[in-house]
Order: sequence, then structure tokens, then C-alpha cells
Amino acid sequence: MASPCRDNGSVNRSNVRPIERSITHATVAASAPSAAAGSSDFLQLRIEDAPAGGRSVWLARELRRAIADGRLPVGSRLPATRVLAAELRVSRGVITEAYRRLAEDGQLAGRGRGGTVVVAAPVTTAAKGAASTPYAHRTAAPSAAPPAPATAAATIAPSAAPFAAPPGPEIFDELRAAPARIDLSPGVPDLSAFPRTAWLRAERSVLAGLVSTELGYGDPRGTPALRLAVANWLARNRGIRADPDEVLIVAGTAQALGLIGQVLHHDGIREIAVEDPGSLGARQHLRHWRLATPPVPVDDDGIRVDALRASGARAVLLTPAHQFPTGVVLGGGRRRELMRWAADGGLIVEDDYDAEHRYDRAPVPALRSLLPEQVCYAGSVSKLLAPALRVGWLLPPPKYRKALVDAKRFADLGNAALPQLVLARLMESGELERGLRLLRRRHRRRRDAMIAAIRDRLPDATVHGAAAGLHLTITFGRDGRRASDTDLAAAALARGVKVQPLSWHSQRPSLPGLVLGYAARTPDEITEGVSVVGEALSRMRR
Amino acid sequence: MASPCRDNGSVNRSNVRPIERSITHATVAASAPSAAAGSSDFLQLRIEDAPAGGRSVWLARELRRAIADGRLPVGSRLPATRVLAAELRVSRGVITEAYRRLAEDGQLAGRGRGGTVVVAAPVTTAAKGAASTPYAHRTAAPSAAPPAPATAAATIAPSAAPFAAPPGPEIFDELRAAPARIDLSPGVPDLSAFPRTAWLRAERSVLAGLVSTELGYGDPRGTPALRLAVANWLARNRGIRADPDEVLIVAGTAQALGLIGQVLHHDGIREIAVEDPGSLGARQHLRHWRLATPPVPVDDDGIRVDALRASGARAVLLTPAHQFPTGVVLGGGRRRELMRWAADGGLIVEDDYDAEHRYDRAPVPALRSLLPEQVCYAGSVSKLLAPALRVGWLLPPPKYRKALVDAKRFADLGNAALPQLVLARLMESGELERGLRLLRRRHRRRRDAMIAAIRDRLPDATVHGAAAGLHLTITFGRDGRRASDTDLAAAALARGVKVQPLSWHSQRPSLPGLVLGYAARTPDEITEGVSVVGEALSRMRR
Repeated sequence: MASPCRDNGSVNRSNVRPIERSITHATVAASAPSAAAGSSDFLQLRIEDAPAGGRSVWLARELRRAIADGRLPVGSRLPATRVLAAELRVSRGVITEAYRRLAEDGQLAGRGRGGTVVVAAPVTTAAKGAASTPYAHRTAAPSAAPPAPATAAATIAPSAAPFAAPPGPEIFDELRAAPARIDLSPGVPDLSAFPRTAWLRAERSVLAGLVSTELGYGDPRGTPALRLAVANWLARNRGIRADPDEVLIVAGTAQALGLIGQVLHHDGIREIAVEDPGSLGARQHLRHWRLATPPVPVDDDGIRVDALRASGARAVLLTPAHQFPTGVVLGGGRRRELMRWAADGGLIVEDDYDAEHRYDRAPVPALRSLLPEQVCYAGSVSKLLAPALRVGWLLPPPKYRKALVDAKRFADLGNAALPQLVLARLMESGELERGLRLLRRRHRRRRDAMIAAIRDRLPDATVHGAAAGLHLTITFGRDGRRASDTDLAAAALARGVKVQPLSWHSQRPSLPGLVLGYAARTPDEITEGVSVVGEALSRMRR
Repeated sequence: MASPCRDNGSVNRSNVRPIERSITHATVAASAPSAAAGSSDFLQLRIEDAPAGGRSVWLARELRRAIADGRLPVGSRLPATRVLAAELRVSRGVITEAYRRLAEDGQLAGRGRGGTVVVAAPVTTAAKGAASTPYAHRTAAPSAAPPAPATAAATIAPSAAPFAAPPGPEIFDELRAAPARIDLSPGVPDLSAFPRTAWLRAERSVLAGLVSTELGYGDPRGTPALRLAVANWLARNRGIRADPDEVLIVAGTAQALGLIGQVLHHDGIREIAVEDPGSLGARQHLRHWRLATPPVPVDDDGIRVDALRASGARAVLLTPAHQFPTGVVLGGGRRRELMRWAADGGLIVEDDYDAEHRYDRAPVPALRSLLPEQVCYAGSVSKLLAPALRVGWLLPPPKYRKALVDAKRFADLGNAALPQLVLARLMESGELERGLRLLRRRHRRRRDAMIAAIRDRLPDATVHGAAAGLHLTITFGRDGRRASDTDLAAAALARGVKVQPLSWHSQRPSLPGLVLGYAARTPDEITEGVSVVGEALSRMRR
């Protein structure tokens, strides 16, 4: 009928019911009040198990566990806070705080008079994930992996497969499919914050006003509405002045790199320099489109422009606002050097992937704003809203404008119209910026939680690039006693925590390290995830 | 703020008002009843101008004109039928019928107690179109074109530019942008029938049940929900048994052809035979992706398999259910011959672009159902719902499955998730099939109107391929007196009617002819459009 998730949803909606209680602590049973419409039975909660002063955390964990193992299916209604507080004989604040944690996690939602409802099961549970992914068959020898800790042993199929060989074209699909309790992969914002209501409202309004011909074949550059909205957005947020006619709407940065690869190749350019370390995914895309990707080192000031010049490359892919994965911001001197290189004929592809997520101050202006003739600018909503929207934009330099429009036409005739029109409304109404402000605050709290957890559980790790973005990078130094970072990532995954090894993103030998996304996880998950990485590291060192 | 259309909508929504009446026939003024909340003034309607027995048609035309020239902007409310009938002293049926015609056209919608509201302005009006299209600057010498007829002279900028040179890669964008009162381009269903309400309802339900991770990066093959829905759809409607895991969701048939082109090229295949005549657009896409397109003739039984075999091509692109543009159905003998050719190692790319639109009997089964190993099947919702959705599907033959998934991954990481999930709901709920049944009836009436008009206004034209689909083709025979079909198309466009010349779709010399879409236009527009083509032809013959 639909995806497993959809199924889950619909089955349970037809089956919305108060949660059963099998039994439980006597106190709870005795005090179950009739006011909790239908909530007279509840999970086997034993408040004595909760540590003093940590009851909210304990309750949140118990609820998460119940959602994960299906005792609280999607669609279930939780007892009112007042009712559950009375049952467990704790203050109502304890319950409220636990619900809040799961709401922030996107697993619970308040439904007004409908109460608090389970709206999402967690990322992946092993039974489902392992059975349904292309990656599962590779986990035939789980005995080689270290045993998972007790809390996860029952639900996580240990596996190191994504890290067993050099990463191939399917690596990100495999890693995504690998079962894990806590996913600290970089590159994804807090998806539970996706503005579902605003999106739907904007779509209703778009559909009501739509002219029928807008549902036909359209301009391959994108709808005029979104091109205008993006031009305005870039002026407000990135210091870029662009005419809407210069904007090319694309299906995310991945497609942008493919189109650029085709056009450069056609122009006789056979290689594009990349930062090292730099995004493995971007490199894979460029190589698929027949461009070599010579590495240029990155230091604390960003890309080494002297090395870029020495490489002889005519084009370079950069992440100047928040270098991926190190998080370095391109320094002022380097910017000037780079502009000189470009003015001499070099082409810069500026991947501005998460520039809007800056915590300490306003983001640095885009390179595009300095030298439009030599900069091909790429942005997307993947980090602003959700990768699944597959919407991004390019500001091509004039010499490649026509070629890129042709490439987009022959790629897919242009993006779908409805989502473009909805997005244009959210951008022009200010709704997207409001959402971004909230998101930034939330992401910042999560970043702080990750830094604290690293200080606590990985005290000899060095943290890089935490002033902006959705991820940070840690390195461990070279002391010879440690295994490779792919082994560490494999060991963490075997314990149910997903991270990316820094070496994936490095073309030349690098310090061992991990790239850790924090934006999509709650502080509790982050703390637990980092702690699991710490355990894995300790065990490897023994 | 948004597209011209969007702007239009929002401006007028903030400005919803009853329609003004400047003045009008005395009778109308005298009988204006106060019950028509706010409708006491109305357009300058002179019922004496209406031909006896044709009052509905006359009123519909007057209303269309008022919408086109802005006197009835989007958002305006029309008087109640009862009220207007009284004002004009005609029967209420006359008004109802006129409103119905505009509703079918997508320009009016009933809004329950909100009355009947203008919801869409017509396709293009010259002032806007000419100023906003890349094509406009090419119309500098309009004096060369014949004058437009009186009814259109004021609003249509005459131009033959899209037909002035051999069609290049931008030809369809240019033709789309060219201003016209009546667009008889093929390939678009009745877009006013797009199920906006059902779409929004399904989207609400999808958003309510969505798991946050579904908003992240996903499976490049598409969401499991849509792959399952497509597999079920193909089983029910096209006689194809496919596992959901075989389905690859793509951004329409255009993208499908690009992915296939890349994969075949990589496999050492440098040419793919195509039907002649056959789709110009498909040929452009394949050539862009570095495949030559040797022509194989089509006769009344479909592609000449002997000629295909003689061509030596290892692959062929076919439209067996309803050949584009001739409308021929591949005959039984030819199917068997073709299957032998494929069994000998030939690869068939089956473009099943409008197979669901068959009027006389059930559609012929897809070739894919006969020989899955040698057939790469492509379908899309462009003719079922709307091209602007940019959703289609491929069933690759096993040998190219992995390569096509990789090609899709490196094209754009997979289609956007939300529209896939919404579409899956519409398919699985039966809503899409219900819509298709209604659409078929409506399209059939429009086809009949077109055939009648051709018989009446183009009596020496031969009609081809009208048993199915969204278009038909007419040819004129070779009698030497006639100009080329591009000249005829140019003359029609100069008179405000958009058609495609058959020669665009022919690689070898063909009879002069036109490809005429009827699905997206009302019977009145079709009659008028064909009549304009007839006038243009008569004038060319003089």
C-alpha cells in the first residue's frame, strides 16, 4: 500500500488507542485514576529504577524504548501528564520534560484536545532495516564484530560492512541503510522541525491560485516565482545580488555538480581541484561526470591557494563559508589570493551548503558576491528544510549560463512545479527565515551538548569547525596505538551508533578522526552516541 | 513575489470583489435584483448580439473575453445563474451551460456558498507573453506575417519565429513561450482536471504520518511506497508483472531517456533506432546523450521490423501502444517479429507515454509483459496527471538495472519524496483511476469535436491515430500546390493558434501534416482552432 512507514501510520491510525499497561509497579496500579480516559493500563514503568534527579531522562528513555520496540506504535496516545504523574507519584514537571524531549526528537506531537500522540518511530530498528536493505546480506559474519552493549544488543545487528572496503558509489546508500539506534551522520538538519503545517498551508494556497498551464511543461530554469524568491533570499542572507533570470533551479547540489561536470567537460576541462579533506560525496559525483579531482590541502585558514595555483587546475570546488568537513572559514588573506587566482581565469564552484547555520556571528559573504564572472554558486534547501525536497539553485557565471540551462533541460526538463511554488511562498512570506532562526537555536544547543559529551567521553579528541554548520569534526592525533578511524566507525556502528570516518573525506593521509552530525539528534542521543564512541575507542585501545 | 500568475492570484485575492458593470443593456440595468449580493453591476452584455439558439456559446465567449482582457480578474465572483438569467431575460439553463463551459475550461470553479469564481486566466495573452519570453525579441518584423483575424488582432502578436529555422534544442521552450489564444500542441492532458483537492488531501495525510527520516536523503530508486504503487498500477492497467524492487522512479520520460542514453553509451552502444515519423523531443534527448537515432519507417501496422533488422541497430525506441505521432497501434504480426528481433539480442525501449488513454477498447498489453529481459519500459504521470509533476518510472531489463540506478543516483540522488508519497496514495486509493475514467470521457468528447471540425473546415485532410491518446495527426497529400507544414503552422500561430508541423517529427521527407493536441482544450476552442487553421490554409493556397 505504501512504504513501511506509511503502512505503520495508517494501520495504527485506524487503530488509535490508549496505551495498554500490562503491569507495573503496585503504586502505579493503585493510583491509576479513572480520569485518564482509557489510560488505565500503561507500560511496565518502575519508578524505582530511575536515578534520583534523573527521572525525566529515565522516563524519556523508557518511552523511546517502547516506541522503538513497537509497544507504543505510531498513532498511540500517551496519558495526560497529570495522569501519569499521579500514577508514578512524581511531579508533573518530570512527565512534561520527558514528553518535551521526545517531541523535540520528532517522536511525539501534541494534538490539542487529542492529547500527546506518538507520531514517529525512531530511525531504524534492526529487524526492519536488516531485512530490507541491500546492505543486509553483507552482514553474514557478525561474530567478527564486538558485541553490542546490553541496551542495544536486542535490536541492533552488528556490522562493519560499510567500513570494510574503500567506499564505492553506493557507500552512502549502504550507510543509510545500516541499522543504528543513533545516527550521527553529518549533513542533515533537524528533520523533526520540518514545517509541515506551513508547507501544507502554502501548498493549499498555491493549488487554489494555480493557473492550469503551470501544470504543463515549464521553463527548464525553474518557475519565475522561485527564481525570484531565491534571488531575494540570496540578497538578504548571502550578500549576493542576482537577477532572477540568472537563477537556475536544480534538484539539489548533487545535480548541480553533475550539470557543472558535464559543462566543464564539454569545455575541455578535465579536472576540478577539490579541498583535502573534502566531501567524499562531491568527489564521487564529479568523478562520475568524468572530472578528475586533484586534492589541494586545507589548513586553519582554508584552502592553500599557493598549492591550488601550483596544481595547474583551471577550476576548483570550494566550501568557503564552512569548509567540509573541517569547518574552517576561508581567511581574509586567502580570499584575496583566491580572487586573484580567479581573476587570472580560474573558475570557482562555490558550494554554500550550510552557510546559513552560523552561531557566533553573521555568515561570511559568498565569494559569488565578489566576482560573479568567475564564480558558479550552488545552494540548496537540503540543510535549510530537508534533503528529500531535492531543490537547489545555481548562479552560473555568464559564460556557462546557456550551457547549464541546456544541461538542465536535457537532464529532466526542469524541476517539478508544485514544490517550487510552495517553497517560493515560504521564502517570500518570511516563514523560512523564521524557521531557520528557531532551527539555529536548536542546533546550537545540540552542538553544545556534543562538545560537552566529547570533553567528557573523548577527552583527548580535538574538536574542529564547531562555530557553524550541522556537524563538527574530531581528530585523535598520531600516537600509533590507535586503529584506523574506519575501524572506530565500524566499532561504533556495531554498538548502534552511526558516524563517518574522516579518512573517507581525505585523499591524502590524514589524522584519524570522525565527522559527527549533531543537528538531527537530541542532546540525549548525542550524549549517548558520543559515549558509545568513547567506549568503542577504549575497547580498541585495550 | 511569485510568477506573473501567482501575482495575479494574490493581488486579486486581496481584492475579491463582485464584478463591476459599466453599463449595459437597459433591460439588464432595470432588472438587476438586489438579491445578487454585490452583483448589481455587470459586464456590457447585449443579449441582442447573441445568435438565436446560440446564447450559451455567445455568453461563454463574452465571459472568456472578459477574463482574458482583465475585466474579470482571477478571484472575481460571477453573479448567481438565477440572477444573471433574470438580468439578461434568458432561461437559467443558458447561464448554467455557459458557466459549465468555462468550468470545463478550468477558468471558473464553483465554490459552494462562495458562488462561481474566476480561478484562472487563459493560457497566454499577448501583452504578457510577448514581453516576458526569450522568443519575443525575434518578432521584430511582424509585418511579414499575415494579419491576425479580427477577433484576435488586438491580443496576439503575430510571429512565425519558432518555425523559421530547423528546430534546435530550445524549440519546445520557444513554442511554449510563443503567445497564442488556442494551444493545440500535443502531449498535454486536460490540466484543468488536475485533482487539486484530492492531491492536497493526500498530502495532508502524508505529512501527518511522515517519519522524519523520510525527509532525509533517500533511496535513489524512489520511495518504497511509490515503487509498490507503480508495480500495482502496471499490473492492473498495463498487464505487467513487476516486483517493486525492479521499479526505478525517475523525473519523467525525458530523464528516463537521458539515463538510458548514458547507460547504453557506456555499454558501447552508439545508436538507437527510432520510429519515423517519431517524437522530435525524444530524438533531441537521445542525441544530447550521444546516441545517433537512425530512422526506421512506420506504416499502418507500426514500425517496419524488416527495416529495423536491416538497420543493424542493437536498440530501438518504440511507442507501440499508440505510435507518436501517427497513432498507429503495433500490429500482432509485427509484435511477433519484433519479439524475435529482441530475442536475438535487440533491446527495446518501450515509451508507453499515453497508453492509458484508449477510447475504443482496452489498451494493448505492453511489450514489457512479453519479454522483460529485453525491454526497458518507461512510463510517467505526464499524461495521467500533469507534466509539471516530473514523475515517471522505468522497469529496466536485468542487465542494466544496476547501471540505471547508479545513473539516477549521480543524476540527482533520487526524486523528491513528498510528491512520490502523495502520488502513491492517489494510485493506491483508486483516486487516480477514477480520475482517468473521467478524463477519458472528456478527452473523447474533445477528440470527437476535433474530428468534426476537421471534417468541416479541413475537408481534404486525412486524420490518423484518433483511436487513443491525447492528439491526432492530419496529413494533406502531395498535390504540389501547398506550402510546407511549417509555413502552415507559422500562419496558424500568427492567427493565434499553436500547432506542431508533422515534418518536425520526421527525419525523412513526409507528407505535409499537423500534429494536433485536443485533450487540453474545450470543444469550442478546438472548433475555433481548427477553423483558424482552415483559414490559414485557404489563404496560403490563394
